[in-house]
Parts: sequence; structure tokens; C-alpha cells
Amino acid sequence: MLYIIGLGLGDERDITLRGLEAVKKCSKVFIEAYTSLLSFGLSSNGLSTLENLYGKPITLADREMVEEKADDILSDARHSDVGFLVVGDPFGATTHSDLVVRAKKLGVDVKVVHNASVMNAIGICGLQLYRYGETISIPFFTETWRPDSFYEKIQRNRVLGLHTLCLLDIRVKEPSLESLCRGKKQYEPPRYMTINTAIEQLLEVEQMRGESAFCEDTDCVGFARLGSEDQMIVAGSMRQLLKVDFGAPLHCLVIVGKTHPVEEEMLDFYKLKGESAESKHNQTA
Amino acid sequence: MLYIIGLGLGDERDITLRGLEAVKKCSKVFIEAYTSLLSFGLSSNGLSTLENLYGKPITLADREMVEEKADDILSDARHSDVGFLVVGDPFGATTHSDLVVRAKKLGVDVKVVHNASVMNAIGICGLQLYRYGETISIPFFTETWRPDSFYEKIQRNRVLGLHTLCLLDIRVKEPSLESLCRGKKQYEPPRYMTINTAIEQLLEVEQMRGESAFCEDTDCVGFARLGSEDQMIVAGSMRQLLKVDFGAPLHCLVIVGKTHPVEEEMLDFYKLKGESAESKHNQTA
Repeated sequence: MLYIIGLGLGDERDITLRGLEAVKKCSKVFIEAYTSLLSFGLSSNGLSTLENLYGKPITLADREMVEEKADDILSDARHSDVGFLVVGDPFGATTHSDLVVRAKKLGVDVKVVHNASVMNAIGICGLQLYRYGETISIPFFTETWRPDSFYEKIQRNRVLGLHTLCLLDIRVKEPSLESLCRGKKQYEPPRYMTINTAIEQLLEVEQMRGESAFCEDTDCVGFARLGSEDQMIVAGSMRQLLKVDFGAPLHCLVIVGKTHPVEEEMLDFYKLKGESAESKHNQTA
Repeated sequence: MLYIIGLGLGDERDITLRGLEAVKKCSKVFIEAYTSLLSFGLSSNGLSTLENLYGKPITLADREMVEEKADDILSDARHSDVGFLVVGDPFGATTHSDLVVRAKKLGVDVKVVHNASVMNAIGICGLQLYRYGETISIPFFTETWRPDSFYEKIQRNRVLGLHTLCLLDIRVKEPSLESLCRGKKQYEPPRYMTINTAIEQLLEVEQMRGESAFCEDTDCVGFARLGSEDQMIVAGSMRQLLKVDFGAPLHCLVIVGKTHPVEEEMLDFYKLKGESAESKHNQTA
């Protein structure tokens, strides 16, 4: 049996009792390393925190390992219980369909243990989840690669009055261009897009396109470290949020559509007000 | 402190360690009764299961109680820790913004413990969450009330190739019309819309509108008891799913938009095939 277990968003205490029970049954436990590692504090001693909680060793599985060694992971799962831990929900922002498909093709049974994901936890700001349009991803722009296909999607959502969740780029274990040229893989340091960079890129695209899908005055909500003890949620215009220091990753951004009064009332608690509109503003809920 | 704690989708084992820790600190614990009670088996002895797990009594709070007695709940929360338990995520399909807004206005601190919600757990069928358009709700039609404003929303999503999550009506503790006329509230038995009824109503609206937003051949995915041990997920055309007995509530339905190959591959595992396309088909994952 392959257990794919969502760990939720905050820390080791966000696993469910069902998930913990499953991990304890597993003879081997892997944890995906390629999306939200940092949010779990695993860069430092988070892995040992988890290992202590579970009472067994955990193998860090980066994207390469999952792609290259999936068959090894799965052949173990044929004869014993193997756990694959995923930050958030197994089918949230990053999906693990690939692993499930490979498992099922090999006749390996799969059980999924759900948990919170950024896709539903953003509900905390008061904007109703059923009032969101298509979710977009904003990639890091480079000198030569500035894709902007998300622009039409935002435009469509806004015409319909819908909110837009923007998932921000994460670059973990990317081989450097230089190292690839030399034929020996070396990795760039990890990069996590900030809300500020996302807004800069959005405004750059708006300036290029000039179709007024949004502007500096468009209301947004910035989320940092959503679901953890020190999460930060701030509502304000793009111009205002540009000046906010949201701190450590992970960040995501919502572009607000038309709001209902009940959404407005809740959003108000997160709004930058008066003096503080210019300074750092911390909201935990 | 008011803790609003998501219980997840399946049973008492779906609470997170963080959630359980919070409940244990609370001097009073309420559980919302008005949405997904039944999915948690609370109609029978589920409440005592929870009480045993938490080691304290839980008060069932139906919609009336939350609306009428919110101030009582909140005044307790000023001086001690009060827990409000919610099936799914506190800000999933049913939101509890109201309670949060009232709490914050009274100066009561609020902490939210996230969990899985139907809004992200549907990801298990392989359709990517970021390829969904606006979510719709389908209400029970009556003789005189057959609202169909969801039709345009489905149409728009489908034009864009996006999937549509349909949340199906739940009627719990509705005063009967007869009893209201008599001036003494009596309640109708609870009703939960099945996937079959939802599809019948959808096809009726399509026939009235005649704009070909969808038809009997449109691909859908039906979910029953999502997240619990006996969940059932079946993919097929509206015509096929009409004949499937999905069993006990809760149900929800996804109308499939344009699919990517990776989505298609996963969805295939849930598809009705050959002979079995005509009979009941059970898929757990």
C-alpha cells in the first residue's frame, strides 16, 4: 500500500490523526522536497522533528528522485506500507497525480490522506472560495523569458467579478545554466517569489498590454506563511502591498474581484489603515 | 480565545494534532450541526465518539443556535478558551466568516485550525484544482421555485474549458411550511441532494434554456462521502451517472471541462467501463 499523506500547511502538528496512524504503519517514509519545504522549516532541523514525532527515519525525495526512483519507491509499496508525505494536500497546488497513476498501473493500492492546502486555506481572508475564477501561476521573469499568458485569465476573472488566486514561483534545486553547459549539474540556491516581485511583474505586464485588466489601485490580499503560527495576511491596493515586507516564504497573492458585503466586512480586518498603511503590518488569525 | 477548528472530511481521526491540542485546552466546545453532520456519522453515536476522543462534552450548535446565541458563545470566549468545531475547513464550502466577524468586533481573539475541505479534496479525481472556474450551488427545485442562475456560470466555465464544482443542496432543520403557517415551528426531515437529482435538474434547465451549455453526454465526476473510508468516485457522462447509486450522502458533482493528458490518465481510473458502466461501481482511493 502506498499512503500519500498531506501534512497541512504549518508544521509537524498539522498532520491528522489518520495521517499519523498511517505513517506509523509504514516501513519506509519519504517526504517530497520540491515544493514547500521551507514553509515547514525543514531546511533546518524540521526533518528530525518529524522523525521524532513518527519514530522512524524519513527520506527526503526531491523532484529528481521521485521521477527517477519512483519505481523503487513503488516496488517497496507492493509488499509493504510506504508513506509519501506531501506538504499541504496531496492534490492541492502541486499535484501528485503522476505518482498515483504509476502506482495504479503497477497494481499498487493507494490511499490518500487529505489535509488543508493553500487552495482552501486562503478562505481565511473572507473572500468566498466559490467566488474565485481560474487560478494562475506567476513564474519568475528572466531577461529572455517573460511569459504573460496569465494576463488574459486575470482579465476574464475580473470581467466576471471573480477573485484570482496567484500561485508564486518556487525554484528549488534548479541546475544552473552554467553547470549544464559544463555538463556537470550544480544547483542554484532556492528562490521563492515574494508578493512584491509578483506585483512588480503583474504591473509590468499591464503596462505592456495596456488593456486595464488591473492597475496599481486594484485591491489584493497578500498571504505569507499561510497556516503557520506567524502567518501574515494583508489586504490593500497593489501599490500599498508593494511596500509591505511580508518576510520569509511562502507567499501567495489574491487579486480581489467584486466583493459582497459579508466578504468586505471580513476583509476589513486585514486592511492597511491610516499610518500603518505605510509600514509593516502583521495579522494573525 | 475562540478556536475555529476544521475537522476534515472523514471521521474523528481527521482532526489535526494542532486541532486536537486546541480542543483539549477549551473549557467549552461547540460543533456546527448545520452542514455536513451526516457525513461524520454524528446522527448516531458520532458525537460520543468525539467526546471520548476529546475527553469533554460537546454542544451541538445548529444554525439557529449559532445565529441566536453567538453572543453567549463569544462572551465565554472573552474569558476562557472556546472551541467551535466545523466539518471540513472553517472557510471551505460553508464559511464561518460571520462568527469571526462578530468575535473580532467584540475584541475576542480568533485562531483558525485549517483542514481539508471538499473544495480541495476533489483534486483526488485527477482534475487539477487550478483548472476550475467558478463553483456553483444547485438548490432543490420546488413546484414554484426553480432558480437556474447557475446555468450561465456553467456555460462560461465550459466555454473557457474549465471544470465546474457543483455543491449540492443540504436541507437540515428546515421549518415546514405547514408548521410556519400554524405559528409553531416544526422541522422537515433532513434532505441531502443526490448526484442523480442534481443531474436531473441540470438537464431540465438545459432543456428549458436550450443553449447547449452541456448535454447528456457531458463528462462528469460524482463524489459521495469524499474523504471517508467508503468514499465513492465515479467518472462518466451525465447519462451514465444518472444510473449510478452513489449511496449515502454527502454528494457533490464536477462537470468536466477540457482535460489535459495528465488529468485524463488519472480520471481513467474512475471511469465506468464496459459492462460495469451500467451497474454500481465503487472506487476508493
